[in-house]
Amino acid sequence: MTGTERKRSGVWRKIRAVGVEDIKLWCTRRLPILKWAPAYNWRENLVPDAVSGVMLAIQQVTQGLAFAVLSSVHPVFGLYGSLFPVIIYAVFGTGRHVATGRSPFERLVPSANASFTTSNDSGVLGLSEFEMQKIGVAAAVSFLGGLIQVAMFLLHLGSATFLLTEPVISAMTTGAATHVVTSQVKYLLGMKMPYISGPLGFFHIYAYIFENIRSVQLEALLLSLLSIVVLVLVKELNEKFKRSIKVVLPIDLVLIIASSLACYYADMEYIYGLEVVGHIPEGIPSPRAPPMSVLPEVATEAFGVALVGYAASLALAQGSAKKFKYSVDENQELLANGLSNVIPSFFFCIPSAAAMGRTALLYSTGAKTQVACLISCTLILVVIYAVGPLLYWMPMCVLASIIVVGLKGMLMQFRDLKKYWNVDKVDWSIWVSTYVFTICFAANVGLLYGVVCTISVVIFRFSRVKTLNLKNMKEVDYKYKTEENCESLKQAQIISINNPLVFLNARKFHEDLIKIIQKDSTSTQAYEDINKCEQNALLCSLSNGSCCESLSQPCHEQRQALILDCSGLNFFDYTGVSMLLQIYMDCKSRHIDVLLAHCKASLIKAMQYGGNLDSENPIFFESVSSAISALQINRNYSKFSEQSEM
Amino acid sequence: MTGTERKRSGVWRKIRAVGVEDIKLWCTRRLPILKWAPAYNWRENLVPDAVSGVMLAIQQVTQGLAFAVLSSVHPVFGLYGSLFPVIIYAVFGTGRHVATGRSPFERLVPSANASFTTSNDSGVLGLSEFEMQKIGVAAAVSFLGGLIQVAMFLLHLGSATFLLTEPVISAMTTGAATHVVTSQVKYLLGMKMPYISGPLGFFHIYAYIFENIRSVQLEALLLSLLSIVVLVLVKELNEKFKRSIKVVLPIDLVLIIASSLACYYADMEYIYGLEVVGHIPEGIPSPRAPPMSVLPEVATEAFGVALVGYAASLALAQGSAKKFKYSVDENQELLANGLSNVIPSFFFCIPSAAAMGRTALLYSTGAKTQVACLISCTLILVVIYAVGPLLYWMPMCVLASIIVVGLKGMLMQFRDLKKYWNVDKVDWSIWVSTYVFTICFAANVGLLYGVVCTISVVIFRFSRVKTLNLKNMKEVDYKYKTEENCESLKQAQIISINNPLVFLNARKFHEDLIKIIQKDSTSTQAYEDINKCEQNALLCSLSNGSCCESLSQPCHEQRQALILDCSGLNFFDYTGVSMLLQIYMDCKSRHIDVLLAHCKASLIKAMQYGGNLDSENPIFFESVSSAISALQINRNYSKFSEQSEM
Repeated sequence: MTGTERKRSGVWRKIRAVGVEDIKLWCTRRLPILKWAPAYNWRENLVPDAVSGVMLAIQQVTQGLAFAVLSSVHPVFGLYGSLFPVIIYAVFGTGRHVATGRSPFERLVPSANASFTTSNDSGVLGLSEFEMQKIGVAAAVSFLGGLIQVAMFLLHLGSATFLLTEPVISAMTTGAATHVVTSQVKYLLGMKMPYISGPLGFFHIYAYIFENIRSVQLEALLLSLLSIVVLVLVKELNEKFKRSIKVVLPIDLVLIIASSLACYYADMEYIYGLEVVGHIPEGIPSPRAPPMSVLPEVATEAFGVALVGYAASLALAQGSAKKFKYSVDENQELLANGLSNVIPSFFFCIPSAAAMGRTALLYSTGAKTQVACLISCTLILVVIYAVGPLLYWMPMCVLASIIVVGLKGMLMQFRDLKKYWNVDKVDWSIWVSTYVFTICFAANVGLLYGVVCTISVVIFRFSRVKTLNLKNMKEVDYKYKTEENCESLKQAQIISINNPLVFLNARKFHEDLIKIIQKDSTSTQAYEDINKCEQNALLCSLSNGSCCESLSQPCHEQRQALILDCSGLNFFDYTGVSMLLQIYMDCKSRHIDVLLAHCKASLIKAMQYGGNLDSENPIFFESVSSAISALQINRNYSKFSEQSEM
Repeated sequence: MTGTERKRSGVWRKIRAVGVEDIKLWCTRRLPILKWAPAYNWRENLVPDAVSGVMLAIQQVTQGLAFAVLSSVHPVFGLYGSLFPVIIYAVFGTGRHVATGRSPFERLVPSANASFTTSNDSGVLGLSEFEMQKIGVAAAVSFLGGLIQVAMFLLHLGSATFLLTEPVISAMTTGAATHVVTSQVKYLLGMKMPYISGPLGFFHIYAYIFENIRSVQLEALLLSLLSIVVLVLVKELNEKFKRSIKVVLPIDLVLIIASSLACYYADMEYIYGLEVVGHIPEGIPSPRAPPMSVLPEVATEAFGVALVGYAASLALAQGSAKKFKYSVDENQELLANGLSNVIPSFFFCIPSAAAMGRTALLYSTGAKTQVACLISCTLILVVIYAVGPLLYWMPMCVLASIIVVGLKGMLMQFRDLKKYWNVDKVDWSIWVSTYVFTICFAANVGLLYGVVCTISVVIFRFSRVKTLNLKNMKEVDYKYKTEENCESLKQAQIISINNPLVFLNARKFHEDLIKIIQKDSTSTQAYEDINKCEQNALLCSLSNGSCCESLSQPCHEQRQALILDCSGLNFFDYTGVSMLLQIYMDCKSRHIDVLLAHCKASLIKAMQYGGNLDSENPIFFESVSSAISALQINRNYSKFSEQSEM
């Protein structure tokens, strides 16, 4: 075996070893279930997870039905939506207490004039052709939205989520919840109402309601009020006593069963004309691709679903991670969200995202891992195959009440306003304006506005912020070490640059520095007027303390010097370097030496290229002290030469 | 007179005094001519200004004609465009060497299917109705673009121009110049060509030219080549000898006269079919409002004209200000640009902006003030009233050559690329991509892309940059003053925060800080394993130097402490404060004291509101030294209490 061969085989072995290791790592990163499932602690976690799972299943069924109605598709699709995305998220997601459900989006099924592809096989599940077309559009939105999320995952855009700040997400979700509540008002009041959408649709809906206030169905209104009161009360009690009794009362389920029974026995559908859920088909349909022809038409909606859904999910996952001290991979979350939109779209699912209410339920019932979600999925399967048809009689107004009460947590985010006001007024105004935008337009518009607004605000604040720190007398914490040199440093100022020097703050930097120089030189001149050769120590940053109080001691004229400590100058761009060079030139023309300390190699290279620097005197130094000693040597030399000239 | 009355009258007097002063100040700020005109130095400046004015007039006439053709309106409107905007800019503008001319925009007159209002009075200036409709659209763009600029002035958006960085403007203007050259190729080659526009139109034009290469008119091509060679050569010579002979040879004018004469005597229009300028009407038309009905259709173009025109003008004004050491008011520039678009739009003017070629001419001919521009306007009036009709025979290919050579300076900006590459690779890529976008689409798209790209880049760089500065041993420049305390400070670290703490870098800040804490605590534990009570001095930032080398000296267990010097924390937002609070809580749970020094009042208030801080031990201190002494007292106390317990 020659040396080359040995080397080659070694490399091969390394590649193979790295390969296996890498693939393993990659798999556990991309399929987090492989990481947590083998390590699952059956004894400790199974019981709490099972209890949580049962609770979750009940909520998933009820809210699934409700939100399907909200998206104006048939309720059975809500059941599917509580099943498939949850399984996929449990496999791919990194958040442990995140229950996926409906995306916080209202208008999914476009108005009737969207060009549907007329499909002939309408007999699926025994639903009407129109129903199938509607779910087709919703599934197409889900499909495209999921694809966008997967594309974002591939582009590693998960790391860009720091742009989604808490105030923006909070305002956006509150606004979305307000929209959802608005869309349920017609069911709560039992009114017949046309579909109103578009910008400012929010206000048109309320205007319509107030105009037609006489058509309110009193039976529905009473039932809604009753349901809401019961739900709120029982949930409050559950919250209060959940420590003593581990199992909470599934009031949603109780209410649904009770109201369905009442509706059935009193025959409310016919006597009072109460709207009910109606026929729910049994079983799971065979998969079918969403209609690809409508994809271009739903692009905007899909983008909204992708971004808003991801933002909301991530916020919940991060909240859970913070509470239970584990970490969330933002990019993996994109993949999990994307896949739990793409794959279920083949099973007639509406777009999904993590649901706040269900996630909160997992917290409160003490779930430990994603197993709770998987258990709930098994139960939902039972519902789909066995219990479904019994839901026929459930009144719509009760469903609407469940939705509204389920959004309580989101709406309660209004309380955050006080917090923002006290911490940062700017963030408060961003919250308010984002909420207004979300209300007037839609969640995606609001989110976009919020992000753009946050970025603009930070840019403008950054461009106005102090860039320099003059190490002055007041800062008595430090004293310069080489005290014996201080006489020659009377005219040297040490200025530290605190920020990156980029186009945003280059001008401010220039202004700040010129101000310091001018202040310095004017006071120097003032002193010179009084005593031509008296040194000014007012602005001398180093002469404080014990050694340099011999102000009136006669001495020769000295050049001023400026030492810029660039250790805080973390990065720069062309504008910043140009500004630095311009300052150097300005100072040169005013006979001020500029010395730079702690510069990065890239900055030195850029400055050396960018301008004709003084080749005789070096201007870059490793540290402030070496700059000072260079200055001192230089001056002693000039002093010496002056003396010898004399 | 009671005290209140006296006070009131005093206030009134003050208001009145302030009022007059304010109005004066406001007037000179808004009408800079009131400032410089009374102080005009007739003796020193009039001669150079007059010489420059004559030169400028010649260039204005020739390039005015040329660029009018470029905008596909009749050449006479180019003459008007060299007159009105220049006067208005001289009154309102703050740049002294800025000659306004055509906006660096190509497609101003929309394609034929734009819905024109059919006007019946077509007899104006003896031009055809179609000509009048075309200039109407161009004037409408100018009107709306100017209104947008004035609105931006009212919103004080002039201060936002730091977003327009040099690389972006350089790339955009180079791209625009490339577009203009492309649009002139058909005249240079004497080809008949349909109007090609839209995205990627640039490439379609060249594709068309190569497909129809056989239809090139050799006479036109020869004349163009000749003109270009003469122009370039003479301009180079002018540049070379401008120091010795103050008056440059107006080669543009000579060429125009020569080619017109040649064309007239050789009757080239009929013999060779050479395209000529044609009939130019005499005199100035009476003002007429631009057609308001087309405003909605030209909104996009108007926005482009407003932003691109302003960006280009400002760049030139700032360049002039930098060269001749005066300052430019960015907001006033917006007003000046806006008005020099709005008012001339009533006189059939195409959109205007500062022209690079003409501004460079003012530099090179030694103009001192705006008087040069005003003198050139008088001369242009003479041309309009007397010389105009004589221009009939000027060949279009000569005009195109003048345009192309006039853009040499802009195209030469390609040389900047090397500079950007050496200073900042990121800015280099921004330049290249902005240029590509400008070429593929239009100048406004390129500008928008460039600004968005610059902002995103700075945001991502900012979010990845080091946020902390550990004051460590290597930084030997400073030594802590209270040397006698150092024993108790072995476990205290002083960390200075260099940046604003906002959503962009909050996470990085957390990571950096956790890294420091973990490194610290692991090494502490390692030491503790060896010698349970031995202090670790490795990470102790203060114990370097002479006093604290007694490492193995026995002592009692001490809490770690973290002193954050917030003097560099210039501003914060909600996310930043949350992160700071979270760190405080984390550290508390790890038994690490966190002390904050140099905090701003707003930060203290926000943190006190945001979290339940330790009420017993204060955590905010005026300076690092007071934090250290507090720490010391606290420890001595605890040491004391421990000892007494023992």
